[in-house]
Amino acid sequence: MPAATTDAAHDAITAIRTLAMDAVEAANSGHPGTPMALAPVAYKLWADVLRYDPAAAEWPNRDRYILSCGHASMLIYSVIHLAGIKKADGTPALTLEDLKNFRQLHSRTPGHPEVHHTVGVETTTGPLGQGCGNSVGFAMASRWLAANYNKPGKELFDFNVYTQCSDGDLMEGVACEAASLAGHLGLSNLCWIYDDNQITIEGHTSLAFSEDVATRFEGLGWAVHTVDDANNLDALDNAIKAFHKEEEKPTLIIVKSVIAWGAPNAANTHGAHGAPLGEEEIAATKEVYGVSPDKKFYVPDGVAEHFAETLGKRGAAAHAEWQKTWSAYQKDHPKEAAELTAIFTGKHPDGWDAELPTFEADEKGVATRKSGGAVLNAIAKNHPWLLGGSADLAPSTNTLINGETGFNRGEYAGRNFHFGIREHAMAAACNGMALCGLRPFGATFFVFSDYNRPSIRLSSIMNVPVIFVFTHDSIGVGEDGPTHQPVEQLAACRAIPGATVLRPGDANEVREAWRAAIENTHGPTLLILTRQNLPTLCRERYESADGVARGAYVIAEAPSGEPSVILMASGSELSLAIEAHEKLAAENVEARVVSFPSMELFEKQDAAYKESVLPKKVAARVAVEAAIRQPWDRYLGLAGEFIGMDGFGSSAPGDEVFADRGITADAVAQAAKRVLG
Amino acid sequence: MPAATTDAAHDAITAIRTLAMDAVEAANSGHPGTPMALAPVAYKLWADVLRYDPAAAEWPNRDRYILSCGHASMLIYSVIHLAGIKKADGTPALTLEDLKNFRQLHSRTPGHPEVHHTVGVETTTGPLGQGCGNSVGFAMASRWLAANYNKPGKELFDFNVYTQCSDGDLMEGVACEAASLAGHLGLSNLCWIYDDNQITIEGHTSLAFSEDVATRFEGLGWAVHTVDDANNLDALDNAIKAFHKEEEKPTLIIVKSVIAWGAPNAANTHGAHGAPLGEEEIAATKEVYGVSPDKKFYVPDGVAEHFAETLGKRGAAAHAEWQKTWSAYQKDHPKEAAELTAIFTGKHPDGWDAELPTFEADEKGVATRKSGGAVLNAIAKNHPWLLGGSADLAPSTNTLINGETGFNRGEYAGRNFHFGIREHAMAAACNGMALCGLRPFGATFFVFSDYNRPSIRLSSIMNVPVIFVFTHDSIGVGEDGPTHQPVEQLAACRAIPGATVLRPGDANEVREAWRAAIENTHGPTLLILTRQNLPTLCRERYESADGVARGAYVIAEAPSGEPSVILMASGSELSLAIEAHEKLAAENVEARVVSFPSMELFEKQDAAYKESVLPKKVAARVAVEAAIRQPWDRYLGLAGEFIGMDGFGSSAPGDEVFADRGITADAVAQAAKRVLG
Repeated sequence: MPAATTDAAHDAITAIRTLAMDAVEAANSGHPGTPMALAPVAYKLWADVLRYDPAAAEWPNRDRYILSCGHASMLIYSVIHLAGIKKADGTPALTLEDLKNFRQLHSRTPGHPEVHHTVGVETTTGPLGQGCGNSVGFAMASRWLAANYNKPGKELFDFNVYTQCSDGDLMEGVACEAASLAGHLGLSNLCWIYDDNQITIEGHTSLAFSEDVATRFEGLGWAVHTVDDANNLDALDNAIKAFHKEEEKPTLIIVKSVIAWGAPNAANTHGAHGAPLGEEEIAATKEVYGVSPDKKFYVPDGVAEHFAETLGKRGAAAHAEWQKTWSAYQKDHPKEAAELTAIFTGKHPDGWDAELPTFEADEKGVATRKSGGAVLNAIAKNHPWLLGGSADLAPSTNTLINGETGFNRGEYAGRNFHFGIREHAMAAACNGMALCGLRPFGATFFVFSDYNRPSIRLSSIMNVPVIFVFTHDSIGVGEDGPTHQPVEQLAACRAIPGATVLRPGDANEVREAWRAAIENTHGPTLLILTRQNLPTLCRERYESADGVARGAYVIAEAPSGEPSVILMASGSELSLAIEAHEKLAAENVEARVVSFPSMELFEKQDAAYKESVLPKKVAARVAVEAAIRQPWDRYLGLAGEFIGMDGFGSSAPGDEVFADRGITADAVAQAAKRVLG
Repeated sequence: MPAATTDAAHDAITAIRTLAMDAVEAANSGHPGTPMALAPVAYKLWADVLRYDPAAAEWPNRDRYILSCGHASMLIYSVIHLAGIKKADGTPALTLEDLKNFRQLHSRTPGHPEVHHTVGVETTTGPLGQGCGNSVGFAMASRWLAANYNKPGKELFDFNVYTQCSDGDLMEGVACEAASLAGHLGLSNLCWIYDDNQITIEGHTSLAFSEDVATRFEGLGWAVHTVDDANNLDALDNAIKAFHKEEEKPTLIIVKSVIAWGAPNAANTHGAHGAPLGEEEIAATKEVYGVSPDKKFYVPDGVAEHFAETLGKRGAAAHAEWQKTWSAYQKDHPKEAAELTAIFTGKHPDGWDAELPTFEADEKGVATRKSGGAVLNAIAKNHPWLLGGSADLAPSTNTLINGETGFNRGEYAGRNFHFGIREHAMAAACNGMALCGLRPFGATFFVFSDYNRPSIRLSSIMNVPVIFVFTHDSIGVGEDGPTHQPVEQLAACRAIPGATVLRPGDANEVREAWRAAIENTHGPTLLILTRQNLPTLCRERYESADGVARGAYVIAEAPSGEPSVILMASGSELSLAIEAHEKLAAENVEARVVSFPSMELFEKQDAAYKESVLPKKVAARVAVEAAIRQPWDRYLGLAGEFIGMDGFGSSAPGDEVFADRGITADAVAQAAKRVLG
């Protein structure tokens, strides 16, 4: 240890290291090397830097600490334990017992950190690059909240975001997208601390990673500092001070470290990355650290007190100061305070739906991306923290909030975000913003949902209510051709557990889909919208679009009320099903049309409702959707027929592609007669 | 035009520009601005730089031209027409008529360039960043072929790769990953030409993109040159000469351009990106160009001749020289020549399967990732151009080819690739290598298939036979927890049209799955393998694993031969189904077990085979798979039961997660009794 390290600091750092070794050994699984390497960095951040009250882990202006290299989870678990972070009820977020249960079923210490599962964890990490992407969203949220809610003398928001990341994070494309965005926006409240340990799973990083990271990040518009030894707390201190002084750019601190630092045989080897060190090596390492090898899960006296003296006192004072400001704020700015209270608690503003439009029946109709833009704007008027943008497609996705400014470098009050052609970072940043209580949306073409899929999965794992607006949803895209025409994306998105997919069939269903999106505060909602016009159905003739809330509903009943065949459809194919229904009625075929915008919402209904919509006795069923069949088999059974896609699309005017693929009202009617026959 | 531009060059460049305008106008759809801006660059490359014989578009050592900004497709279509590129039968790859059919159904000029559809197009582009990623694979293939097949005095391979790309490409993470990899590998045969036009769909690039691209790429290990005006052919010439001299690094040429150059009103506006200019503006622009506004799809006399004099002559000579070398090579190196002939024609080497192993029955068994490694190695011995690697997970994915060196900077003969933690670029590069006739595989954890999904989609659209090895395929991953446990990925991958997913149930099925992968030369194959051990089934007791080729087969029949219930399973759940079958037999329940490694292969079988495996009259069916239900409904019908996942997993030892989620042989047996009851 360098001279500047006090005994207390040394003990704390050593405890982090030995807890990590011991927990991984007890689990016989995990990643000991990185926590051992980065213990001084985590110590430094928590003990000396973070404004964070361990007794109030939900304090809205706390600095955020993100462990993007989530495999090093024992680093944060050890700190959470040692620093005495508390749950809302005042009990420890993690006890020593919890650490002993590392990676066990139902423990609070899973293999990778999970937000909402372990107090003190800000975001779920593990898939590399995601924590980096999230962190940009956190930093954006800090700036947005400050720009919109701070008042002279009442600075409620100025939190910083610290992200520990690894080679793997920096190799991932999503992190580069996020870094480019952060540099563009000049997010000087964002600090990434890169663990430059020269080791990856396959061996030395020189096998695959030899770029000049510092120069790359300078090009991306970041301030870059290097610390030559992760154990050098003074050097870390200087780098962090430089971050605090920086006012124009995000900061990257490159910290050279030794994986499994101190382990006589394992240090600086890739073997130390993802496997326990073994009892013998642990014993030898503890000797190097000056800890008795007999002691397991050992925390020396004084470590908890040391964190209480440092982090605890500093955090409590800052928090108390903030509470004073907040009290005054509530008195002086009751409207804004009410909004913030809603943000802090994940509520909607009252009256958010006051101006939702109703669309008149119209045969020519309107593209659902366009009605979507109208509904978004109607909501945004009364929902101040609904904000977002697109991956450079706002004129096409219709996701600009009218009359609002952009969120730009130095102008952070705007609600229109320009994410650039960075779909993945957009989604990851939206996750970060949502974790700060904002209601972000991210928009792009549906086919590019493939690009942000890893982040959508995390929205769902974390239960954060990001709204994804995916337009250009099928072969209806037309001339742009197969690379731009989604075919399998509906099945793929419906497959994500916890994600709610809505594909509304006309403008009024769009309104209800947006309503469902706003009301879904417990996971991502994906709105799937057309490029091309769709008729706006006459809701006097057909059932009300309110049924969208139940996922599927009978929009047109068989003339007799006793259907012999059920036609199911979503989105742009709803009007085909209705047209087929008319054709069939003319031939005295009793067809029911079920509008099916959301399978997930339908599956949440009770058995009686489901039976009322899809009676078991009506086995003759046809589904039509300009996408693959996979999700529909659940409702079609072995006897049903599907009208849709079984391969990629073509470049041609959209209606010609529909005709070429046989996705027509006639085809639906014919299929209905076949399943009846 | 700068003085250096000759009349012939001017006419050619102008023809590219006017053809692009006219075709977009005729289609009433498309992207005119970028072809108008980049016409001089494309002209320069084709007329003066590319070693490419327009009469032999499949010449294996041709320089590759990739239009990563595929929306500018009229740029390449115009050049293909003007440069007289021929199909194999000697007819024009694209006639003027084809250009007039731009973006029409079944035309040869789809909205975005499609390989195998339009001769002269090397790879399908459009989803931004993908062409950049592909291009790294092309450059790797050039180096690998040279290192393995060039002989002193007989240099068969030294092709260069030129990639035109846009802001959007460079913002995409996949391109950054690919650039980092290319810089790491020192691919000095790779040149990206970046269209720095300052315009994106939402407006000026300053809205979202303000990084210093040159510095970023210097950090990534690239040589960077800037051309201040896309119209300055001399400056382009100098930059390309510098590329040709560079021996250590890939080259980025930043070309400042004006979108819709010359258009009086549209130039330098984002309106010119993705919509026709309109007749009026086209007329005005033609006047600026010195072309009569009356002339549509106009090609001045002399342009074809000019390309014939430049590209044509140069290419024919280079090709003839190469043919001479190739003739001598075939005589002097018949073994290598035979291999190359197979590579050029997409064939396997004879005897590739000579050493495929048979695995003895073994109750403890082996993880399919491990048997997969053994099979891969057995194939690699006799398949010299099977090559690949992992996204820094080789020790976990078991994808190292034993006894082979790595593919490293300056050492390009190796077959083991270290892609780094860059899943997306790995997949994109594999697409590029496959387009050069190699048989690449890319490996990572299955959950990270989400990261390379956009490239898998393109493997499938392009019908290129990339093999994806995805290990750690379920909650069996265990302690790493939900972020690392695939749940929805099987459904999502099976959803991709044209992709073949195989999830083998034991070591012998792994052998057959790899066999199917090698034999599938018409699209991607995804091998889904376990982390945990699986029993190796006794194939004397149970049916032969040969059935894998048919996707699903009866592995264990009902004792009477007359099943009353069918149990279907894939991968690690196959042994659960077999165990359930034994339990049921003991209770006199007649169950058949269908091993179901591949739904795609099963769907290719004839109706009689399908009926023989899944007789319609047996409606009592149970499927078990440690994943979501969605793909199984097709075989379960409305009456079947599914044992599997309906949410994310947990961090705990894998067997405990299986038990916790109720995925057990007992559960399968119980379900069988329920569906019968």
